[in-house]
Amino acid sequence: MWRLHQFPLCPFSRAVRFAMAEKGVTAELVAAYPWERSETLSRLNPAIQTPVLENGQMVLCDSHAIIEYFDETVERPPLVGASASERAEARRLAGWFAQRFYSEVTAPLLAERMYKRLVSREMPDGIGIRNANRAAELHLQYVDDLLDENRWLAGPTFGIADVHAAAQISVADYLGGIDWRGHGQAKVWYSALKSRPSFRALLADRMEGIRPPPDYDKLDF
Amino acid sequence: MWRLHQFPLCPFSRAVRFAMAEKGVTAELVAAYPWERSETLSRLNPAIQTPVLENGQMVLCDSHAIIEYFDETVERPPLVGASASERAEARRLAGWFAQRFYSEVTAPLLAERMYKRLVSREMPDGIGIRNANRAAELHLQYVDDLLDENRWLAGPTFGIADVHAAAQISVADYLGGIDWRGHGQAKVWYSALKSRPSFRALLADRMEGIRPPPDYDKLDF
Repeated sequence: MWRLHQFPLCPFSRAVRFAMAEKGVTAELVAAYPWERSETLSRLNPAIQTPVLENGQMVLCDSHAIIEYFDETVERPPLVGASASERAEARRLAGWFAQRFYSEVTAPLLAERMYKRLVSREMPDGIGIRNANRAAELHLQYVDDLLDENRWLAGPTFGIADVHAAAQISVADYLGGIDWRGHGQAKVWYSALKSRPSFRALLADRMEGIRPPPDYDKLDF
Repeated sequence: MWRLHQFPLCPFSRAVRFAMAEKGVTAELVAAYPWERSETLSRLNPAIQTPVLENGQMVLCDSHAIIEYFDETVERPPLVGASASERAEARRLAGWFAQRFYSEVTAPLLAERMYKRLVSREMPDGIGIRNANRAAELHLQYVDDLLDENRWLAGPTFGIADVHAAAQISVADYLGGIDWRGHGQAKVWYSALKSRPSFRALLADRMEGIRPPPDYDKLDF
């Protein structure tokens, strides 16, 4: 049995959970908060980061590495893409959301609206939040542009670009950082994701002490 | 003919050049400095980052995506690993160096010792450099630890973990951020890399206006 060490607002853990659910692989969830620097997490992953997936014999870290592992070992549905060039585009976009969206949007929102509330007990910084909201706006515009070309972010089929984008956006949305107005295409895409059982399970999760906006897990938002 | 848009101290471009040379794929180098935000680079890659690889028909961005592309399309030598678990470990470490080492060591050294000298014409910040040097020390210790277990960083064969680690370390070394003393294992490993023609070509490159330390490209250092 796989055990996934994660916490509900970790966007990288969400990407892994989403991909594993699409592949039909189950994992027991184990709560791990990197800022507590627990002995267990440090031993499993010297980076002291979530997600970590382990089964007593094998330890897998890094959301990209974990998702590629399941794409190689569980055939259906393919998540990385068919041809080499489609796979390159899917990986480019997976990296875009896991790095750029994360550093410009998700990480500052987690710092201001989760870490300061639950851990350091400071007031959030309004400027930091405003900058994150502005960056989110540009990223949603990019999602709209990508959907002008394709049914899913990286091409005609659902895959890792959608998984990583949805994982990051869902955390930003939980923290009040997403304004869907003016992003009709992105909204249709996200609505299709919300209707997948694999993603709905994620949206049902709550981080203790922080409530998402009322429409966060609604199909109609 | 592939054209690689890059600059000599871009660690991600170095990783791509190293991997392509190992695969025997040639590319014409085109100088691109992301901070100039040229129209060409913005058009090729909306992230306005190097490396970008293109051939007039196809555009590839993101060092991980590019290297995986060549691993899928050029059989020999394999760079990602044999079994799915070896591949997961190689990808974990490739991510470690491209993200952690980059953000803690390479990025601050590039900011202090390249960007401030060549672009913004400011004095470097001594504290920033000292923190980067300290972080480099911990990463070299981790390299030593990994080499206690394996001949190469992720296992018995050379691959993407070594490529990404060497690319980051070589830029930090160029900028005076690497002290090899006390890291015998890491030094033997890096010395083996330095003797590969694919890596030597990289080390011959110079960034105009910045000179590396005298031992930077020496086999005996």
